[in-house]
Amino acid sequence: MVDITHKQNTLRTAVAQAIVEVSSPDTIMAILEKKVPKGDVYEMSRAAGLLGVKKTADLLPDCHPLPIEYTDIQYEINGLQIRILITVKTNYKTGVEVEAMHGASIVALNMYDMLKPIDKGVEIRNIKLLKKTGGKSDIDHSQTG
Amino acid sequence: MVDITHKQNTLRTAVAQAIVEVSSPDTIMAILEKKVPKGDVYEMSRAAGLLGVKKTADLLPDCHPLPIEYTDIQYEINGLQIRILITVKTNYKTGVEVEAMHGASIVALNMYDMLKPIDKGVEIRNIKLLKKTGGKSDIDHSQTG
Amino acid sequence: MVDITHKQNTLRTAVAQAIVEVSSPDTIMAILEKKVPKGDVYEMSRAAGLLGVKKTADLLPDCHPLPIEYTDIQYEINGLQIRILITVKTNYKTGVEVEAMHGASIVALNMYDMLKPIDKGVEIRNIKLLKKTGGKSDIDHSQTG
Amino acid sequence: MVDITHKQNTLRTAVAQAIVEVSSPDTIMAILEKKVPKGDVYEMSRAAGLLGVKKTADLLPDCHPLPIEYTDIQYEINGLQIRILITVKTNYKTGVEVEAMHGASIVALNMYDMLKPIDKGVEIRNIKLLKKTGGKSDIDHSQTG
Amino acid sequence: MVDITHKQNTLRTAVAQAIVEVSSPDTIMAILEKKVPKGDVYEMSRAAGLLGVKKTADLLPDCHPLPIEYTDIQYEINGLQIRILITVKTNYKTGVEVEAMHGASIVALNMYDMLKPIDKGVEIRNIKLLKKTGGKSDIDHSQTG
Amino acid sequence: MVDITHKQNTLRTAVAQAIVEVSSPDTIMAILEKKVPKGDVYEMSRAAGLLGVKKTADLLPDCHPLPIEYTDIQYEINGLQIRILITVKTNYKTGVEVEAMHGASIVALNMYDMLKPIDKGVEIRNIKLLKKTGGKSDIDHSQTG
Repeated sequence: MVDITHKQNTLRTAVAQAIVEVSSPDTIMAILEKKVPKGDVYEMSRAAGLLGVKKTADLLPDCHPLPIEYTDIQYEINGLQIRILITVKTNYKTGVEVEAMHGASIVALNMYDMLKPIDKGVEIRNIKLLKKTGGKSDIDHSQTG
Repeated sequence: MVDITHKQNTLRTAVAQAIVEVSSPDTIMAILEKKVPKGDVYEMSRAAGLLGVKKTADLLPDCHPLPIEYTDIQYEINGLQIRILITVKTNYKTGVEVEAMHGASIVALNMYDMLKPIDKGVEIRNIKLLKKTGGKSDIDHSQTG
Repeated sequence: MVDITHKQNTLRTAVAQAIVEVSSPDTIMAILEKKVPKGDVYEMSRAAGLLGVKKTADLLPDCHPLPIEYTDIQYEINGLQIRILITVKTNYKTGVEVEAMHGASIVALNMYDMLKPIDKGVEIRNIKLLKKTGGKSDIDHSQTG
Repeated sequence: MVDITHKQNTLRTAVAQAIVEVSSPDTIMAILEKKVPKGDVYEMSRAAGLLGVKKTADLLPDCHPLPIEYTDIQYEINGLQIRILITVKTNYKTGVEVEAMHGASIVALNMYDMLKPIDKGVEIRNIKLLKKTGGKSDIDHSQTG
Repeated sequence: MVDITHKQNTLRTAVAQAIVEVSSPDTIMAILEKKVPKGDVYEMSRAAGLLGVKKTADLLPDCHPLPIEYTDIQYEINGLQIRILITVKTNYKTGVEVEAMHGASIVALNMYDMLKPIDKGVEIRNIKLLKKTGGKSDIDHSQTG
Repeated sequence: MVDITHKQNTLRTAVAQAIVEVSSPDTIMAILEKKVPKGDVYEMSRAAGLLGVKKTADLLPDCHPLPIEYTDIQYEINGLQIRILITVKTNYKTGVEVEAMHGASIVALNMYDMLKPIDKGVEIRNIKLLKKTGGKSDIDHSQTG
């Protein structure tokens, strides 16, 4: 684990995405009309993602535990793809990129789990960091995502 | 949560993949030669994945807790891509597809976390179920992956 | 911890309740119209409760870990009270009463947490077992609740 | 999750209660004389409550993880009721009300779990916040509890 | 993780020990007279150990999750040493040796944590398996411990 | 739980050890040559230990949750003994001694778990604090270990 004892707290933000691709427009409609038998896919997956962000350091050995001060989860539909956008913020000595990516993956996996009974062709595509600020260098991949 | 009280135990297997794509052959060499500063990427990520499979029901609200009886994690390199192949087995009333996909995602995220200091362009691509047996219907996407 | 090595699996069910009492009809309306700033109170609390049921043995020292095979969470409104009804089932050597009550308490606490910014007078009342079947003796308090 | 990145640390305290009501004075005596077969009800439940307070953000999606700097758990007997009083303190950007209430509920549930074999009529009543200091406004319900 | 899908459930038991050695008879007296400032050392450590046994598969990557059907924790004092004896039982495809040893280590660590303010010389000695039954071969080191 | 609300953050370090004793030089060779069937013992156990340090406050009731800012795990072989040396650092109001000792015990238990199939005589000896700095008084037992 990287030694961060000498570092200062600064505001860190990270935005990550995950793409869930379904195999039929009916699946998209079922989500939007809240007719998926397991429940409200967006809300349940948001709850899972909020908890997942906070558990990142429990699952990844080298991740520093850190105070999650903000998490936001949004959904965008593009054809058969649902794009999950997750923003995480902290004031700490190290960034929240992996936390944001972990949250995005948990939201995507929960959508997969809830959609499995009605769509056998769901896949998760392209979990990536879109943007980060704070720390030594900022990154912005959001125009190329 | 789906009611499985009336179902019988049968042998269930699932194989899932995740693809980690790095931005340079140097990153692949660093992994293989065990020169990544954070440690042995394959072994640490395998440990994270073994634990991650077991924590699936802790993270996804509708997942049934179940006895994980076998997990295996393999790596394949194709150019700049590392393909993670994970197999999970149980004898239970419901399958282990989501557990395999969750394990694959945790392995991939841990690789991302360990590689981040040496490669800013790592992405996770295409987490998907390749194969499952047991349950009402078998699935085999392994030829089309 | 009670020794259950000699016991047989039987179908066990438990129904528990928790009552959340708010201080104004506006709070009830905000929940029903999904206008609570923190999000959809019913769905987020359901997600928390589904996870909470599965974590009971992690929190209570003497509880046996057991396979949760079904959980259902319903809400009923009576004036300023929201009654949470939770049903849990398993086929195991011991019952799921405490799991149902723990789930009910987590749903109630999550409602409290989400409603706190808009209603300072929320209280949790009367977490109790309504009914259990399976095991040595059945219990039915559901007519007296 | 509410954005607290701009807030300052201040000392926050919260006092919450839960009431456990048993159905017979024999149950109260068994607790006080440490004759409950599952063990010392007060001490085991205190241990569960101390751990429970720390796990609040693991169970409730919108709760910020925060450094618990003090927890104290006391018991008061009034007839057939045991009143659990729990105090939690932190220096942080947000309060510990929900942490105190979660801790109180875990203490109460553990008492229920340990007493179940000797008293089938145990109920949990009235989990509520009694007092909080720090933050925008103090609350004191302790005279009306 | 070893593949146990083909194995049959049998009754498995394991007994493990840990030794906590203190530096003064005053520490032993403080424990027995329940005068340790942090609380009742035996009962709090028993609670931690009961929970710890159940969390073994969460901490050790290759451990199979399994149904803990019985745990018992006893203490024996010999001079400056406190011997923790822990028994774990299950009916499952694999044994509970590591679960018993993990429980013993958590009890010992909790005693260390609670005694630290009054005795700077506490050490943990000799965590070992004393006995196991069930499985391919029984082991009995209890006469040589 | 000790009240630390009034304390100041200072740099705290702790070094702890655990000794794993095997029964044959073949076991040592199998570890070093990475021929243990369950996998790479050093790397898997390091991963378990890094995670274990972070989970200390989840397992021990009186431990304060705190930001782990550095963890390092080293191995030394002396005959049939493997000495695990673990260093933990934080800037916080209380020390990381128990965190270091817990990490050491988890590394040792994981080695036991992985070696069990090839060596029935593995024991864990002497988990102890070697050194701490920060806080009211420094301790240095490292010359007497």
